[in-house]
Amino acid sequence: MTSAAKTVRVSAETLSRQVEAILAAWGMLAEPARVTTERLIEADLRGIDSHGIAMLPLYDEFRRDGRLVFRPEIRVVREAAVTALWDAGGGLGHYPSTLATDMAIKKAKASGVAVVAVRNSNHYGAAGVYVERMALAGLIGLSGTNVHRPAIVPTFGAEPMFGTNPIAFAAPTRRNRPFVLDMATSTAAIGKFKMALMHGKPVPEGWAVDEDGGPLTDPARALALRLLTPLGGSRELGSHKGYGLAAMIEILSAILPGAIATPLRNRPHGPSRPTPNADNRFDVGHFFAAIDPAAFREPGEFEADMDDAMDALRATRPADPAQPVLVAGDPEYAAIAERREKGIPVPVPLVDSLRTLAEGAGAPFVLA
Amino acid sequence: MTSAAKTVRVSAETLSRQVEAILAAWGMLAEPARVTTERLIEADLRGIDSHGIAMLPLYDEFRRDGRLVFRPEIRVVREAAVTALWDAGGGLGHYPSTLATDMAIKKAKASGVAVVAVRNSNHYGAAGVYVERMALAGLIGLSGTNVHRPAIVPTFGAEPMFGTNPIAFAAPTRRNRPFVLDMATSTAAIGKFKMALMHGKPVPEGWAVDEDGGPLTDPARALALRLLTPLGGSRELGSHKGYGLAAMIEILSAILPGAIATPLRNRPHGPSRPTPNADNRFDVGHFFAAIDPAAFREPGEFEADMDDAMDALRATRPADPAQPVLVAGDPEYAAIAERREKGIPVPVPLVDSLRTLAEGAGAPFVLA
Repeated sequence: MTSAAKTVRVSAETLSRQVEAILAAWGMLAEPARVTTERLIEADLRGIDSHGIAMLPLYDEFRRDGRLVFRPEIRVVREAAVTALWDAGGGLGHYPSTLATDMAIKKAKASGVAVVAVRNSNHYGAAGVYVERMALAGLIGLSGTNVHRPAIVPTFGAEPMFGTNPIAFAAPTRRNRPFVLDMATSTAAIGKFKMALMHGKPVPEGWAVDEDGGPLTDPARALALRLLTPLGGSRELGSHKGYGLAAMIEILSAILPGAIATPLRNRPHGPSRPTPNADNRFDVGHFFAAIDPAAFREPGEFEADMDDAMDALRATRPADPAQPVLVAGDPEYAAIAERREKGIPVPVPLVDSLRTLAEGAGAPFVLA
Repeated sequence: MTSAAKTVRVSAETLSRQVEAILAAWGMLAEPARVTTERLIEADLRGIDSHGIAMLPLYDEFRRDGRLVFRPEIRVVREAAVTALWDAGGGLGHYPSTLATDMAIKKAKASGVAVVAVRNSNHYGAAGVYVERMALAGLIGLSGTNVHRPAIVPTFGAEPMFGTNPIAFAAPTRRNRPFVLDMATSTAAIGKFKMALMHGKPVPEGWAVDEDGGPLTDPARALALRLLTPLGGSRELGSHKGYGLAAMIEILSAILPGAIATPLRNRPHGPSRPTPNADNRFDVGHFFAAIDPAAFREPGEFEADMDDAMDALRATRPADPAQPVLVAGDPEYAAIAERREKGIPVPVPLVDSLRTLAEGAGAPFVLA
């Protein structure tokens, strides 16, 4: 990681064939493999490389550890008119999350609002793809997930208690592409530390802390420790707000569906429940809410106001005329356009990893 | 504002009598005056002084301008099983927001989730009091409001496009008091600039910008310009996330109910709707969502996990043993305990203002 890895450009279609073949060879059924592949490639198309196909080697590691099953029993545990709880059966989150999203869409279209939560799951990829799906169906979407590996250190703390707990929100439009916010509740993403290390530069004060809770700017140590600040960076700049948002996502995504809350993972705690995770399972949870603007306004009014507001925001007087003000989703849409045309850039080491995974699983290797 | 104002301690009960008398003298009916007073005093008890009785002089200004009515027609515009839209009739937000909150509670208890939005409103006080009300009723609560006066400058921008658009979230517990997050989506609150000015100190870089979008640390200029950064403070420290959250709250609170979106206030825009606010009305909007954990988990399980998680967070190894890690709501609960015992500290200039307001309205003055 001390020099930028060379990349090759691969079309989304070819990459999809490769990913789907590996997932199928790992035992995933055809429809879950197709849908999981779609969600992974959507992340790559958006430029969210850390949440797309680059996850496959880690999924393989979990698979070989026996902690991630590829033919899970996915089921609806509870269902009512506007709520539902799914159990993902210990498999990857993409497919059950897509089912949960589509169920939230259907219920919200019927009743105006719906909440569907998922427990006993694993990584669900990029949060934004689920809420964009809701927005493209004409609904406001809100989603979040907890993350099994702690990274965010609460304000005043010196140890991590939450994963990077993303919050994603989308709203439908007419002239514009949907508004799509997809953000970790940490100040910076892990990928940015890797970039700084590659370029031999320190990271800004406020991204990470050391074991004593003090500021840390060395990217190598920061990557080794993985102690991230909540959005805000320091108490002075409002990190208690980012910490509060991370907790909000933990409550909605993990405590609401009854997944393992990360602050309680591997910790002894009160008499109300036994110490969880004795079997080293992940049991990650996700949250999906959908709201139909048509329950509140005349058809088209919401979308027209969205378009006007997005236009007004892009027309904000800029600090630097060369850098116009953007709206959430704009960088991702630009990446999609570029990558649809030129292909998705895949680092050569990742191509090699995918070859190894394909060969190991007995799947065809189609990226040659 | 160059020296700390002296304060007197007044009991919540006495202060309530004073506020209710003034509101009634301004024409508010008995029940709205009682409820509005409750919400205002709740803010003061929590230490959110900027959103409690200190607002009365500004309300009076709006009242005398004819822009804030004290006997509004408050009505339900649309209602279905799990959604509703209220019109606040151009009055203060506290009373219609309480009605909307209670309606969201009732609907969510019946169906599992509900969303109620309010348009044509004004300031609703401290966002946290509405979600705490939901949590005390056993529900997860989410609320937000837009703010008519722009303050938050989008990332890369040099002019304000959103108010301080707060997000509030609460969750019920059993042993603990509810988790209650209540945060502006700006980095710092206006009150903190006033404190810095009083103490003759610069504000940290990252709280405010100047007319060119550059960093500004002079509290006097910052207060005059009111150009606040979104949470994150700078692009490097994630201000695009705070900007995205401010936009999310604008969409849920203003665009969903059809209030005036602040980015569109007093701006020419597209053909889809006329330039709003021609009559200088506020038309602020609010958002209230409630989720019943009982729709997802067995009775008591959610609350037990909340208690365990809150205990675990408070037990986070601290960076400084003298400053333990807190959970959202802790500072406000400490303020409530202290102020219930010793009274609410009211700056002497505010006592004088309240006397003037009472006398001007023909209401008794009971703080003497």
